[in-house]
Amino acid sequence: MKYLLLLFLISISPTSVFCQVDKDLALPVNWELGYNSDPKTESLNWIPAIVPGAIQLDIAKAEHYGLWYYAENWKNYLWMEDQHFTYRASFKKPELKSNEHFFFISKGIDYDFEILLNGERLFQQEGMFTSVKLDLTDKLMTHNEINIVINPIPKSKSFPADRGQANHSVKPAVSYGWDWHPRLVPSGIWDETGLFVEPENAIDDFRLDYCLNDSLNASSLLLSANGRNLSGCTFIWKLTDHEGKNVLVEKGNFEGDNLIRTAELDQPKLWWPHDQGDPYLYTSRIQLFDKKGKFVQAKESSVGFRRVRLVTNAGCTDPAGYPKSRILPPIQMEINGRRIFCKGTNWVNPEVFPGIITASRYEELIDRAIEANLNIFRIWGGGIINKDSFYSLCDKKGVLVWQEFPLACNKYPDDPHYLQILEQESASIITRLKKHASLVLWCGGNELFNGWSGMDDQSIALRLLNSQCLKFDPTTPFIPTSPIEGVGHGNYVFRLEKTGEEVFEIMNHAHFTAYTEFGMPSPASVDVLRSIIPENELWPPKPGTSWESHHAYNAWGKNTWLMQDMIEDYFGKSNSLEELVIHGQLIQGEGYKYIYEEARRQKPYCSMALNWCYNEPWPTAANNSLLSYPNITKPGFYQVKNACRPVLASATITKFKWKSGELFKTQVWMLSDKPEDVKAGKLKASIVSGNNIYSMGTWNFHTIESNKNLSGPEFTLILPDLQPGTFKLVLEVDGFPELNSEYTLLVGS
Amino acid sequence: MKYLLLLFLISISPTSVFCQVDKDLALPVNWELGYNSDPKTESLNWIPAIVPGAIQLDIAKAEHYGLWYYAENWKNYLWMEDQHFTYRASFKKPELKSNEHFFFISKGIDYDFEILLNGERLFQQEGMFTSVKLDLTDKLMTHNEINIVINPIPKSKSFPADRGQANHSVKPAVSYGWDWHPRLVPSGIWDETGLFVEPENAIDDFRLDYCLNDSLNASSLLLSANGRNLSGCTFIWKLTDHEGKNVLVEKGNFEGDNLIRTAELDQPKLWWPHDQGDPYLYTSRIQLFDKKGKFVQAKESSVGFRRVRLVTNAGCTDPAGYPKSRILPPIQMEINGRRIFCKGTNWVNPEVFPGIITASRYEELIDRAIEANLNIFRIWGGGIINKDSFYSLCDKKGVLVWQEFPLACNKYPDDPHYLQILEQESASIITRLKKHASLVLWCGGNELFNGWSGMDDQSIALRLLNSQCLKFDPTTPFIPTSPIEGVGHGNYVFRLEKTGEEVFEIMNHAHFTAYTEFGMPSPASVDVLRSIIPENELWPPKPGTSWESHHAYNAWGKNTWLMQDMIEDYFGKSNSLEELVIHGQLIQGEGYKYIYEEARRQKPYCSMALNWCYNEPWPTAANNSLLSYPNITKPGFYQVKNACRPVLASATITKFKWKSGELFKTQVWMLSDKPEDVKAGKLKASIVSGNNIYSMGTWNFHTIESNKNLSGPEFTLILPDLQPGTFKLVLEVDGFPELNSEYTLLVGS
Repeated sequence: MKYLLLLFLISISPTSVFCQVDKDLALPVNWELGYNSDPKTESLNWIPAIVPGAIQLDIAKAEHYGLWYYAENWKNYLWMEDQHFTYRASFKKPELKSNEHFFFISKGIDYDFEILLNGERLFQQEGMFTSVKLDLTDKLMTHNEINIVINPIPKSKSFPADRGQANHSVKPAVSYGWDWHPRLVPSGIWDETGLFVEPENAIDDFRLDYCLNDSLNASSLLLSANGRNLSGCTFIWKLTDHEGKNVLVEKGNFEGDNLIRTAELDQPKLWWPHDQGDPYLYTSRIQLFDKKGKFVQAKESSVGFRRVRLVTNAGCTDPAGYPKSRILPPIQMEINGRRIFCKGTNWVNPEVFPGIITASRYEELIDRAIEANLNIFRIWGGGIINKDSFYSLCDKKGVLVWQEFPLACNKYPDDPHYLQILEQESASIITRLKKHASLVLWCGGNELFNGWSGMDDQSIALRLLNSQCLKFDPTTPFIPTSPIEGVGHGNYVFRLEKTGEEVFEIMNHAHFTAYTEFGMPSPASVDVLRSIIPENELWPPKPGTSWESHHAYNAWGKNTWLMQDMIEDYFGKSNSLEELVIHGQLIQGEGYKYIYEEARRQKPYCSMALNWCYNEPWPTAANNSLLSYPNITKPGFYQVKNACRPVLASATITKFKWKSGELFKTQVWMLSDKPEDVKAGKLKASIVSGNNIYSMGTWNFHTIESNKNLSGPEFTLILPDLQPGTFKLVLEVDGFPELNSEYTLLVGS
Repeated sequence: MKYLLLLFLISISPTSVFCQVDKDLALPVNWELGYNSDPKTESLNWIPAIVPGAIQLDIAKAEHYGLWYYAENWKNYLWMEDQHFTYRASFKKPELKSNEHFFFISKGIDYDFEILLNGERLFQQEGMFTSVKLDLTDKLMTHNEINIVINPIPKSKSFPADRGQANHSVKPAVSYGWDWHPRLVPSGIWDETGLFVEPENAIDDFRLDYCLNDSLNASSLLLSANGRNLSGCTFIWKLTDHEGKNVLVEKGNFEGDNLIRTAELDQPKLWWPHDQGDPYLYTSRIQLFDKKGKFVQAKESSVGFRRVRLVTNAGCTDPAGYPKSRILPPIQMEINGRRIFCKGTNWVNPEVFPGIITASRYEELIDRAIEANLNIFRIWGGGIINKDSFYSLCDKKGVLVWQEFPLACNKYPDDPHYLQILEQESASIITRLKKHASLVLWCGGNELFNGWSGMDDQSIALRLLNSQCLKFDPTTPFIPTSPIEGVGHGNYVFRLEKTGEEVFEIMNHAHFTAYTEFGMPSPASVDVLRSIIPENELWPPKPGTSWESHHAYNAWGKNTWLMQDMIEDYFGKSNSLEELVIHGQLIQGEGYKYIYEEARRQKPYCSMALNWCYNEPWPTAANNSLLSYPNITKPGFYQVKNACRPVLASATITKFKWKSGELFKTQVWMLSDKPEDVKAGKLKASIVSGNNIYSMGTWNFHTIESNKNLSGPEFTLILPDLQPGTFKLVLEVDGFPELNSEYTLLVGS
């Protein structure tokens, strides 16, 4: 028995409905939203509703509210939190053939809702991540009205208007207010939804599970399907490679409503993240034919063959001496037997209102990450579980996904009601996403084992999530939270206010198995600032204005995220908004670059570097993100891109500000995450001030083995008379300018 | 809804058979064992078998083997590992009334076996912790023979004859050989087993689950029962207090074979460990009456109401600075809202052959632990899950139980067959033990997150055990292994061979949340040594003799556990066995005393101190245990007893050997784990050498708050001319001699 794990997979049956929605087949209906901003009257205004979307956006449109992200308009939306809203759609009974069924299907309704048909309450659900499929066939009249009643957003009592209100629900905490997200809590139908006629014979669920053998050169396949009235129907199943060639074909009959077939695939092409190989996908397609042999239906999904493990980091051994504790928990990603250095970023909701996220929004953001040489997204637990298109795009483009459950910075209770919803929602989430090749890590949520959350290893919610992941997706690793022991979060500034320590010093002394959050704030670019801050508030920035609403002040600390005082302490008083922005963005880029490169130098003990954060849900005035909303690069983005090149020259730095005559020291490195060897070469280090170039030395480095770094010599230089402003440390690799690096440093007075 | 957790309990249904066996009702049969030590012949010898017992003991008796624990007799037993054995019993078909059933019931058969009736194979099982209940009614003939075929013990291939052979089975690893356990692997029927007629109407399973409210002054009760032909039967259920008074009575009818009733109990008396209060037990008893009102059956169990939590240790806060990792995992035991310092010990199998363990063997060992002021047993994962009587006695006597699953020091694989057996066995173990008030902690196994095991947080076996515990016993904490982060195991010697550091220095610098294993070896007493080592080998001790078989040499290191060289380095060459034993046992006692007291001083950051180990499965020549087999105290036992008194005077020590004229420093403490305040008093410290007493100082200490320590002054003394041999540091508490302490120290030359 070579592939015993297959038996283990068989023993595990998903319980939740997995819905595939083909928009083109939906019955065309007009959705309307009923609401009343005046709680005294009982009559509802009916306005057009966009589905999927958000009640807030429909109302804003109908009532001509200003854009939620301009100035302080978000405050006008607050009243909507505590109201009941009703969606309605009218439709005529469609003509149904015998055994055809009529369904209401929704992939997501946010958050606590009821569904009524012609006034009859058919369904109730708490939870936005569990899809709904209601058979309406027997309830249909000639003229019908379907209603979806959305209850007020959940709020834990005795909490102020902050994330604490989210601590008893499986609703993303971020929208209750975060240091880079306004208090704007979405509500309503947020994912694909419609009314559908389904054929007489129909496959509901169709899955292909697999298990690679130890040598990764063969895979056992487990095809399973189930549906309605399938007995006597026939099927053709094909596994097709990327070029459209059939590599496996199975035909047969359904004997009941369930089908299970096994097959063997020899020499599968493996799926890799984009920087390690080809994200190779096969297509698994089943065609269903009725008893008369007539084609009824086809379902397909992509399959990427890969084996993922989380393994103990190199150098993590038993502590020395006695009493002796344990080895640190594993956080080294291994894909297809290869240890991968994860260069990634923390993904947050790309929109305040997830209902309006489209596949193309996802795609432009994923493409940008690949451009920046990143290979993993941590889907942070404060936000939503993304729509299907996100994971399909990550599969296709070869970006790894670390997926958290929607728990963040709260103490989620050992409370039966909460646990029951969490059990339901987690089952839905896991069974929906587990088929994706990109999905390589489940995580309970964000910073739950820290004091500001107050959960621990005994928290039932996290034991439940571990158990659910094991039950539904046993071959994907699970961690209870980030950080775990050995892993670090933070810091989020270029220079500590209290001690004056800079990011260089801190990173040079840090020794972690993974850096899974680290931030470096900067102001947004001037164009972005002009688009959100009224002209009269724009200069100089002040607390209590739109600047503060957009997180420039009192976000994390008093001066975050603008940090004008620190910027001006380095560069002197800014004479204009433009000057402040340029200096702040320079600091962000140099800081981020240093952290990524130093984390890479600490490989293999260190296995990950993920900055906080990648994107943002609305335009902030200042933030740690690399992109401004919706997808505007900051200069720091390009520094991250440089630091994350598969191969580059790199140098250590001890501080930011230097004076002429000081002794400047740096150790040079060649960093490589490439799966192939890199040729020997010659590195030259210089200090460049204005037009003057001062050589520090050269290093003839030997061949760099695949996926290894080379540490080079330490160079020293008594700094010459530097021109005022900034100077650079420049590394050049003879004949390979794409490997060159440079570091901008400040000339002190 | 005050007691919502009850709903959670309802949602969880145990799947395994829980067997209660009343020996008095068993059909009397004679069991025989068939075996053949010569594999060439196929005929079996039949000898009398004792059930429960072990095949090894039956054969040893029939073939007049020497006692397994004398000299090197164990070697004669080795051949039995790889044979098939058959138990048989003949019986006449009993007269059965209509609807009466005839069962074979066994609470434990070790390890892989088949059951045949009259030559027909009825059942097969791998796993010694899952009980068997077979309905034989329809298969009975006039004359019957039942056979139980025991397969050879499981051995993982490609391992030498050591614990590694146990790494694919749920069989305790210890019997494959350990540093204090011979290679003797038991096999056969090891727990209560017999043939039973069961009445027409019968309750199989009867449980009382409960959930205390937050204030611990009321409890929701959930009574559940199920069985056969119960429809129309009536029941009376009574909850009776310790004095026999009924506190709750419920009567009613069975409507089917399942019964679920809820009730509320006001002001339940809480169950406490013996040193914190009264281990108060109620009796829950159900009486069953048939349709005619005739009494049929009664079942009862004890119930202790207590709430257990594992909470974060005091002083475990977020690490300072950034990057920031997590808070250490909780290991502080909280019972009924009170944080308890766990003074305990590691329990190992009290017999090489668990089949011969009786309730009275358990009781004498439990009583001894209470005598030593210990309040918790860690049932170490290398050994068996104990028989029911053990846990019932712990309930009754108020000793906490930390129960491990049978995984120890091996890499148990992500292998479907192993995982399937583990799932079965863990379900049986959890559902059998969860009802016990004493059972306060589940643990995956021993030292699994250390290099010599090689498992980690991603190991499926441990994720499965976490999941199983959550499913079947959600209100009891679970830890994956010991040590976890912050917890220490070891050391196991008085003085490190390499560095010369003594236990005093090591403990004074240690800073752990719990010390869950620490050892201190000593030779056994002379009488014990004489009972296992032939006279001609007795003196001087030598490797390669019975001394080595009994772990005096090459057990953990070359010189363990006798450590004669170290003993003689302190005390000079021993002139006799008696002298060596006295010196070795003195060191053990002083070492253990110091560790327990120093761990207590580190309270509340430190929450546990458990020595390695309490007892032993056979008489060792030298070992870390406090007791020699079967229940013989070593002098160290009494030092542990002293160190674990609820309240005592205590002092710090920096080293063992002192010279006249040296500056002796000690800090004095009053240690208290008492739930009540302790009166103010006066402590006097003196150095006593021969008949001379040198006062070091006195300390008037104030009232000691409940469950808190008081740290006192540091006293110093230039040591006077000490008489050769040993001297003592003596602490006396005015008027309370029971709080006095003394420490024996060595006079150096």
